[in-house]
Amino acid sequence: MSTTPRLYELAGADPELRFSPYCWRIRVALAHKQLDVQTLAWRFTDKEAIAASGQGKVPVLIDGEACVHDSWAIAEYLESRHADRPSLFGGEHGLALARFVRPWVDTALHPALARLILPDIHAVLHERDRDYFRRTREAAFGCTLESLAEPAQREASLKALDRTLRMLRAPLSAQPFLAGRAPNHADHIVFGAFQWARVIRPLDFLGQDDPVHGWLERMLDAYGGLGRSARLAYR
Amino acid sequence: MSTTPRLYELAGADPELRFSPYCWRIRVALAHKQLDVQTLAWRFTDKEAIAASGQGKVPVLIDGEACVHDSWAIAEYLESRHADRPSLFGGEHGLALARFVRPWVDTALHPALARLILPDIHAVLHERDRDYFRRTREAAFGCTLESLAEPAQREASLKALDRTLRMLRAPLSAQPFLAGRAPNHADHIVFGAFQWARVIRPLDFLGQDDPVHGWLERMLDAYGGLGRSARLAYR
Repeated sequence: MSTTPRLYELAGADPELRFSPYCWRIRVALAHKQLDVQTLAWRFTDKEAIAASGQGKVPVLIDGEACVHDSWAIAEYLESRHADRPSLFGGEHGLALARFVRPWVDTALHPALARLILPDIHAVLHERDRDYFRRTREAAFGCTLESLAEPAQREASLKALDRTLRMLRAPLSAQPFLAGRAPNHADHIVFGAFQWARVIRPLDFLGQDDPVHGWLERMLDAYGGLGRSARLAYR
Repeated sequence: MSTTPRLYELAGADPELRFSPYCWRIRVALAHKQLDVQTLAWRFTDKEAIAASGQGKVPVLIDGEACVHDSWAIAEYLESRHADRPSLFGGEHGLALARFVRPWVDTALHPALARLILPDIHAVLHERDRDYFRRTREAAFGCTLESLAEPAQREASLKALDRTLRMLRAPLSAQPFLAGRAPNHADHIVFGAFQWARVIRPLDFLGQDDPVHGWLERMLDAYGGLGRSARLAYR
């Protein structure tokens, strides 16, 4: 007999507002694996709730006796634990693609999107998370959250994001998903980044004719519309 | 009856010095396909020699009636024309990987390496190419070739390259080639960049324990040591 796995997910003041890009990678990966999951709202300052994982960040997956943290480690765990389910990678080359896409998302796409949404994230956090968030993010970006929201800075951030998105436009002009005809974990990793931004504020920077827009619509429709059904901060 | 295909390749004053990263992609792709090729030395200012391609850059491949330019178009041509030979992509996910790696190399790895080698490239060019090269590169990088060679600038360029190489260290710590257990065209594209730099000057920035170093050694050994046998500017 197996019990439904539990996933600790970052939430805002509204416990249904789930915006962590790393947690979204896993939500979509679980759907790809056709696995049920019980999600639990977690805040940055809830260190005790996930102490069993031996560290202080989500996602954390509790699956029977297993307690796995780090989104990549969780994906590898799901892939080997549920080898009979649809593969997250689809073979050696698909795994290689996800391994290459992941550091690009972490080092290029996330920072580019963060500059556009950090002030809005701060506004939707639980009150007890706000000081922690402001302190860590202002240190990481070397400026105040308010300065990121200034029109001139925002304009510069949008231009930098546009350059970053060229990396996605090339493959997505040639094929419907980053992995080809169907999404794999490389798509999940990039989707996590856009879902993070989209849950926080409308993606007004993606034109209708941008190949990234078409891909995002397909990802929002995939897995029974899981991504599209997410609680938004602005609706 | 088929004749050996001919490939126009960028060369220095020494016609055997072949350093274009885009031409190296194709040299290695031809070896991957186990195809013979006759290479022809070409300089930036030899526009007439490749006029049949309808544009002014190499690589240009002449294969029977076909005249193909642009390294990606040549790879696609080789893949479909020689479908019976080892695949450059190895399926849908391998093609997706190459499609993602390519814009990263063009927009991140090439500029990072260029800042370290442009002054040295200028020194090995045929005299009639030098003005063209200086004018176009100084416009593209917004500074003189000499300023790139200044110690402080070089130090900054090395640091920026080191950050860029993190993208390769992640996958290459987990697998021997970017495509997995064996190289595919994604590896060829990245190899082209390193071979470009390596032919021009020793890669003193790659430590022995850098996963990129191990990968480059494997790529130099691959295809019968094709890359390792290249003429170097400094020996």
